[in-house]
Amino acid sequence: MTGPGAAPTDHAGLAVLGSDECLELIRSRPVGRIAFARDGDIELLPVNHCVLGRTIAFRTAGGSKLTAAYDGAVVAFEVDAYDARRRTGWSVLVKGRADLVTDSSLLARLDDAGLGTWVPSASRAEWVVIHPDEISGRRL
Amino acid sequence: MTGPGAAPTDHAGLAVLGSDECLELIRSRPVGRIAFARDGDIELLPVNHCVLGRTIAFRTAGGSKLTAAYDGAVVAFEVDAYDARRRTGWSVLVKGRADLVTDSSLLARLDDAGLGTWVPSASRAEWVVIHPDEISGRRL
Repeated sequence: MTGPGAAPTDHAGLAVLGSDECLELIRSRPVGRIAFARDGDIELLPVNHCVLGRTIAFRTAGGSKLTAAYDGAVVAFEVDAYDARRRTGWSVLVKGRADLVTDSSLLARLDDAGLGTWVPSASRAEWVVIHPDEISGRRL
Repeated sequence: MTGPGAAPTDHAGLAVLGSDECLELIRSRPVGRIAFARDGDIELLPVNHCVLGRTIAFRTAGGSKLTAAYDGAVVAFEVDAYDARRRTGWSVLVKGRADLVTDSSLLARLDDAGLGTWVPSASRAEWVVIHPDEISGRRL
């Protein structure tokens, strides 16, 4: 039973969010999580991200095995926020492909985007971008 | 340069957490995220979890494709907390295998654990447990 103007809901009764709202929500939080398969295992790591147009970008250590694993990888990226007391919240999921950034004009734009790195390592030299195939979100 | 009693650090200078502290931190937050591979894709979903001994448990909709996907799946489970202003935080990662719970005594213990479900659906009938192979955590 949805009245006129009400947000659509999924099979569990959660409000379904549009992709523009999802991107705004991703922007609103400094930390998301990226998941991908590697060597029969699943990696799942928090990343300090930024949003550039419809792509999500973050920095990672140069030359690591992890860096190599990102290149061309099928990934999922998730951002959420919850209020435990009120049991409300939202989550946004991006599915797509990750790429190491080598294009110099894109690198310049990313460096200008001014993402502060939280990790006290000077070696977060590489940028990874996620090109979304799907962006979906739910509000509880 | 680590003094006596200082926490060990990883290559990025983050403090490495012990597995008991990791389990305490998982317990301290109501929502984590589970990731697994499915049909060449990566799923990454927030779940409202509880900890029973050294296993992590959550409820999911009975009879869904997702439920079937969990059974025996290689998974990663992540919990974190951040203070954006102070740029501090922690994250804990569990790697292991998920199982649908069919054992009636375990089901009874899980039902007794009193996990409140956040989703307004009556159909979250199945319990999934994650048996950790690895538990690791970092503090920033």
